[in-house]
Amino acid sequence: MLRLYYAPGTCALATHIALEEAGAPYEAVRVDFGAQAQRSPEYLAVNPKGRVPALVTDTGTLTETPALLCFVAQQFPKADLAPLADPFALAQIQEFNSYLCSTVHVAHAHGRRGARWADDAGAHESMRRKVTANMTECFDLIERKFLKGPWVMGDRYTISDPYLFTIATWLESDGVDTAKLPRVMEHRRRMLARPAVQKAVAAEGTQIG
Amino acid sequence: MLRLYYAPGTCALATHIALEEAGAPYEAVRVDFGAQAQRSPEYLAVNPKGRVPALVTDTGTLTETPALLCFVAQQFPKADLAPLADPFALAQIQEFNSYLCSTVHVAHAHGRRGARWADDAGAHESMRRKVTANMTECFDLIERKFLKGPWVMGDRYTISDPYLFTIATWLESDGVDTAKLPRVMEHRRRMLARPAVQKAVAAEGTQIG
Repeated sequence: MLRLYYAPGTCALATHIALEEAGAPYEAVRVDFGAQAQRSPEYLAVNPKGRVPALVTDTGTLTETPALLCFVAQQFPKADLAPLADPFALAQIQEFNSYLCSTVHVAHAHGRRGARWADDAGAHESMRRKVTANMTECFDLIERKFLKGPWVMGDRYTISDPYLFTIATWLESDGVDTAKLPRVMEHRRRMLARPAVQKAVAAEGTQIG
Repeated sequence: MLRLYYAPGTCALATHIALEEAGAPYEAVRVDFGAQAQRSPEYLAVNPKGRVPALVTDTGTLTETPALLCFVAQQFPKADLAPLADPFALAQIQEFNSYLCSTVHVAHAHGRRGARWADDAGAHESMRRKVTANMTECFDLIERKFLKGPWVMGDRYTISDPYLFTIATWLESDGVDTAKLPRVMEHRRRMLARPAVQKAVAAEGTQIG
């Protein structure tokens, strides 16, 4: 039995969806960010980074969304969530997921988590002001270059899809003009039609759009 | 034949080392950051993100260090650079590499690339002031929790090692007190004893320490 630690509105939703898609036996445990539970000694014993997601397995605990997504795909190969035996095709998935975690998620985080990178309120406000432009630039690249359609990697649904979907649920709150992202929005609607996505979204109580 | 686009002092060194370790047929092409060549139409045609590394393969171009490292390991399995068939062990490598790209590299980048996340000089200066503290915090976790020793994953050398090594070459310029990181520094010395590392470092003209 796997145990996924998550908080609503975070990137943990991507792994939550992937576990549903894989038909994996798991339980989802909410970490109360409002009560700063991610900083509690109990949670830091699970994940010393104090972040979600964390996935507790029989072998040990794993963190970081790209790693968890690949783990789910490889642990549950029947779900066919990644082209595991094709080095180039798998690398394209990792490339996309790595871009999401190191550039797009980071661009988003500057709107709420500026205290990670600077100590004064003026700098935090300055970072907040640039979030819409940065997220727009990232999603313009995704819209024009990276999203092959209908799924991220083309005809095949992969672990890149729940990750893109998750980050795309942040577009409105980041002030991005979604009218200029018709392909990304079509992907979001297509994702919402999948039972696995509906189940994970409902379990977390995620608000979309 | 593979073609790696790199610039000295960047995370492209990790993939450069991995290609050497794998005995891969490749050529390394320097992108002149001093002349802003990463923003030229020619380079943007290779990598629309305007960053390094980029790896041109017979099938297409790949970017993002964690993806490139996994690609090299999977494409050249005889070099045994990752436990490809063990989902948990492979996920641990991806977890570590994902932490490096999305947290540690990002912490470092706020010292020089603040313009990515804010438009005013005061905010850039504020970000610069926090780099040493953030890099110290990240490397304290690596020193105490993540680096198993002697290699990142324990007795087995993997694609996490060139990546840690590469980012650890930035410690001094980021103002981190390396005397408090004996295990990380021992890893750096151990890496420098490897012929593949020496060759990639010499080819890039990297200054270490």
